[in-house]
Amino acid sequence: MTQRTDDKQKPEILSQQIVAQSRLFKVEQLELRFSNGEERIYERMRGSNRGAVMIIACPDPEHLYLVREYCAGTHDYQLGFPKGLIDPGEDILTAANRELKEEIGFGARRFVQLKSLALAPGYFNATMHLVLAFDLYAEQQAGDEPEPLELVRWARQESAALLQQADFTEARSVAALLLAQHYLEANPDVFKQTAGASEDHRP
Amino acid sequence: MTQRTDDKQKPEILSQQIVAQSRLFKVEQLELRFSNGEERIYERMRGSNRGAVMIIACPDPEHLYLVREYCAGTHDYQLGFPKGLIDPGEDILTAANRELKEEIGFGARRFVQLKSLALAPGYFNATMHLVLAFDLYAEQQAGDEPEPLELVRWARQESAALLQQADFTEARSVAALLLAQHYLEANPDVFKQTAGASEDHRP
Repeated sequence: MTQRTDDKQKPEILSQQIVAQSRLFKVEQLELRFSNGEERIYERMRGSNRGAVMIIACPDPEHLYLVREYCAGTHDYQLGFPKGLIDPGEDILTAANRELKEEIGFGARRFVQLKSLALAPGYFNATMHLVLAFDLYAEQQAGDEPEPLELVRWARQESAALLQQADFTEARSVAALLLAQHYLEANPDVFKQTAGASEDHRP
Repeated sequence: MTQRTDDKQKPEILSQQIVAQSRLFKVEQLELRFSNGEERIYERMRGSNRGAVMIIACPDPEHLYLVREYCAGTHDYQLGFPKGLIDPGEDILTAANRELKEEIGFGARRFVQLKSLALAPGYFNATMHLVLAFDLYAEQQAGDEPEPLELVRWARQESAALLQQADFTEARSVAALLLAQHYLEANPDVFKQTAGASEDHRP
């Protein structure tokens, strides 16, 4: 019951081929043989493998910044933390600071990496790095958004109310909120620290 | 800064068409005009809209059940909560009980719905309903898994260690763990309740 993943023999990939492709998406079909001899056809999405960042920006100890943004998948506006793909050659924190400037008009002088999350690993190989941002300063950078995002300043003690918002449901934003709250409760002194000392608290 | 989503004017869909399709995936292209006049091309995945369930099964007040399962997207074994698509005509709790029987060999007599999560709403319209399961009983049901899933019994007080597992990273499982812990800490009497009284605690 406590066998480690490393002990498990992965299925053998008998064949793999791209079976559908659009501007953004590439679907790959895998023919697999499991270690017990069972054979199956699976499909997965091929991504850019560049990774993405999601930023929980803290303007002060009592608040978090969210954005409300149009989402084509659901064709409505959704509330969540600022996020975006890492550009080629960028490191995680550079990408986090750029996305913050593009999406909410703030940069940050100090970051803490919380955890890296996967999106439905059965179908994707997509990683999103959660980053807390402190010591904010006003700086707007032009992004590729078709319209300015709505900035929402949320009181941290109202996180139960945030979880009840009908438009705050993205799994990665929900996980980010709860992980950020755990971190901030366990590290109340993080707001007193000086800039320039970025920390890595990833498990 | 606290404008409600309802006030926001959605972009107008000027055209929509399927631009790529495989056995499992269907990619739709949208031509959009935002309320400020900006026009953009977006792509999104068309899903089954049947929804999915993820089940946090509690054999006793101190433990949770996880499964370790092959994930084609990452081509490795990942740890997470049992989950699966809702079959046509099934309600959420019937699907939850069926998936439990198929994936871990237990049914449950009592359920609590926690929250419904979205998967990357920018690209998908996929909803996963998180369900806590209590009063478990042994019952195996045949599923379509190519191999039996590895069952992992995890001590609730070791949730920080679970968050540090390199193979426990799916955003929906991370959110489920943290939401379940909040619920169970706030409702310690849930284990003393009698069967048959399913509750709906969705926000």
